[in-house]
Amino acid sequence: MNEQLRRDAEAVVRTAIASVLPDRAVERALAGMDFPGRVWLVAAGKAAWQMSRAAVEFLRVPIAGGVCVTKYGHVMGPIEGVECMEAGHPVPDENSFRGTECILKLTENLTERDTVLFLLSGGGSALFEKPLIDPEELQSITNQLLACGADIVQINTVRKRLSAVKGGKFARWCAPARVEAVVLSDVLGDPPDMIASGPAVADSATCADALAIAREYDLKLSERAWECLCTETPKSVDNVRTRIIGSVRQLCAAAGEECRKRGYETVFLTDQLSCEAREAGRFLAAIVRSHAGSGRKMAFLAGGETVVHLTGGGLGGRNQELALGAAEGLAGLCACVISVGSDGTDGPTDAAGGYADGDTLAELTAKGISVAGVLRENDAYHALKAVDGLIFTGPTGTNVNDVAVVLIGE
Amino acid sequence: MNEQLRRDAEAVVRTAIASVLPDRAVERALAGMDFPGRVWLVAAGKAAWQMSRAAVEFLRVPIAGGVCVTKYGHVMGPIEGVECMEAGHPVPDENSFRGTECILKLTENLTERDTVLFLLSGGGSALFEKPLIDPEELQSITNQLLACGADIVQINTVRKRLSAVKGGKFARWCAPARVEAVVLSDVLGDPPDMIASGPAVADSATCADALAIAREYDLKLSERAWECLCTETPKSVDNVRTRIIGSVRQLCAAAGEECRKRGYETVFLTDQLSCEAREAGRFLAAIVRSHAGSGRKMAFLAGGETVVHLTGGGLGGRNQELALGAAEGLAGLCACVISVGSDGTDGPTDAAGGYADGDTLAELTAKGISVAGVLRENDAYHALKAVDGLIFTGPTGTNVNDVAVVLIGE
Repeated sequence: MNEQLRRDAEAVVRTAIASVLPDRAVERALAGMDFPGRVWLVAAGKAAWQMSRAAVEFLRVPIAGGVCVTKYGHVMGPIEGVECMEAGHPVPDENSFRGTECILKLTENLTERDTVLFLLSGGGSALFEKPLIDPEELQSITNQLLACGADIVQINTVRKRLSAVKGGKFARWCAPARVEAVVLSDVLGDPPDMIASGPAVADSATCADALAIAREYDLKLSERAWECLCTETPKSVDNVRTRIIGSVRQLCAAAGEECRKRGYETVFLTDQLSCEAREAGRFLAAIVRSHAGSGRKMAFLAGGETVVHLTGGGLGGRNQELALGAAEGLAGLCACVISVGSDGTDGPTDAAGGYADGDTLAELTAKGISVAGVLRENDAYHALKAVDGLIFTGPTGTNVNDVAVVLIGE
Repeated sequence: MNEQLRRDAEAVVRTAIASVLPDRAVERALAGMDFPGRVWLVAAGKAAWQMSRAAVEFLRVPIAGGVCVTKYGHVMGPIEGVECMEAGHPVPDENSFRGTECILKLTENLTERDTVLFLLSGGGSALFEKPLIDPEELQSITNQLLACGADIVQINTVRKRLSAVKGGKFARWCAPARVEAVVLSDVLGDPPDMIASGPAVADSATCADALAIAREYDLKLSERAWECLCTETPKSVDNVRTRIIGSVRQLCAAAGEECRKRGYETVFLTDQLSCEAREAGRFLAAIVRSHAGSGRKMAFLAGGETVVHLTGGGLGGRNQELALGAAEGLAGLCACVISVGSDGTDGPTDAAGGYADGDTLAELTAKGISVAGVLRENDAYHALKAVDGLIFTGPTGTNVNDVAVVLIGE
């Protein structure tokens, strides 16, 4: 029975991810656009390559030039007229800074007749970056924020101020050229100034917000970094139009549609999940425990981006921890939880996420693996690997957060 | 608008609690019972007084004698023929042991013609206790288990072995008399051997389970305590019949009915919630964020018993932490979360639980209170008190876990 559940679960997440792939979304966005002069293509983020390829294919005018910066392993081939570069994520590296310099050079000295087609997706924060402080310190600050469990909104509020391009500063740089921003959203609720730290959007956060975060997490900062936090970001940018073409809401909607097609009575819970990953798994398992065995095939959907507070040095990701967190509650039941990142990579692993069902706990126990111990070490990857609980999709070319799907069999 | 939400929320939890008060439930349980000889009444737990009073009222025969042991402040007056005693909870004290000795004396040397009407409710673990080790060590072990976040199942597995009455041992003591056990359940899923540590139920857990828990939490134990953990509990008892007359499922069902009466489209999530309290609050708030503002009045119900891992020395309870955990996610929305213990006491406080709505975060911030800081200190009581977010019911006389109700306004 659980084999059928697993097939359904994998099919649901694959269909959901397919619905938010950038190609058709970019095509739709470009359909209504008009370019009076030269067009410069700038793409940054985990979906930058797919978005660039789609743009070059569907634009009715040739581009004057282009630069695309994406994550390592995400360039799938050359794109005519576009320099494709790979760089570090989630921590920016030398190649991030080099790619960003290429973008700034491409968009130097533009005129009112120029248009920058700015294709932005999740991961842009690390991939499109010119730090105002020593890059090593920038990495240390990002590491501090990730390790203490700061959410993406908090991380971006700080990073905007340490950057020459974020928080609306890239749009200022391009002026007086027009910027047409096309955005695949990876931030819950889609606040445009938070996606990739809003290089082309006025910053809604203030210096006071940034300083409060620095104090809350007791960040270690140089004097120069403190100065940057105290420097205000642009509060208006008037040469930009922004379109959001995909988000976690669409991811959940597509997952729900596929669940219904497969005969599951479907309940959409949320697309703004942001709590601790393992506790989200426990909550979902508690839902299962109260609905399993009723003879009804049911599905529950929760999208968003959970967080992990690191206490160990193991390997894993938030989706894998969510699935593992559910394993105990699911034990013995005809039900499963699958959780995946729509970008196909969960944490610093080659898996897209994790899967657990009514057999998982027994399989772990039989191999001498304790869930509590694994979670303490943040080592969900190896535990799930041992029981065939990893989900692999490869890089998908999109990035609109995560979706967790609960399926309850008959 | 939030005033209406609050009125609805309080009415829903009060109605739900009223539906699981012991009186009518005990009446129903007694209706089918037949007593050929003498009847001895034994009651232990937070609802012991109400259950005793109802039993004396509805029994068609006079009792030969009775002892009732409940929590301090829970005896509401004398009951004819029943000695009513108050004792310590959640940590057993001298009065717990004294009350238990009275019960053992009452039920000494019974015959096959005798019946023990055994009225059990939550809290019975602490209130009905005769330790096999030094009482101070028993308290230290219970404290260790509570502080490290062990769940009630784990706590009871250990305590059964350190007790002369738990884990079926009281039923053995009463033999050859019949034991008619009538139980208000406070354990999720109602496993009878876990409720009040099952004094009249064969123990399903083994020595190996108990030892695994002791090792998982690195309990400090005397040699005598280790010996007790290694001594097996009764694996069959044949003089007992058990009826479960109330549980968290009924609590949730009644809450749901009242939500529907008040015009809320109602979704029952679970009656087996057992994750970290504040994360449950965040999960519920994430549900709100994706459903608020749609113009539909909606309710979501989650019953169970969350846990709190203590990191500070403040005052609070799991229901208060759940409500506070929801406050950030609810900010600015026309929605609320209320969470209460059906016994009317949440943690070591005089409140039954907590309430948060779209205004709570702003009110806390205006008073200079940070949610993160409060949760770090486990001081939800004082924070909620400052913004009128505590719910008071007084002791209710029942105890079937907690219910959290989410209401979303139009």
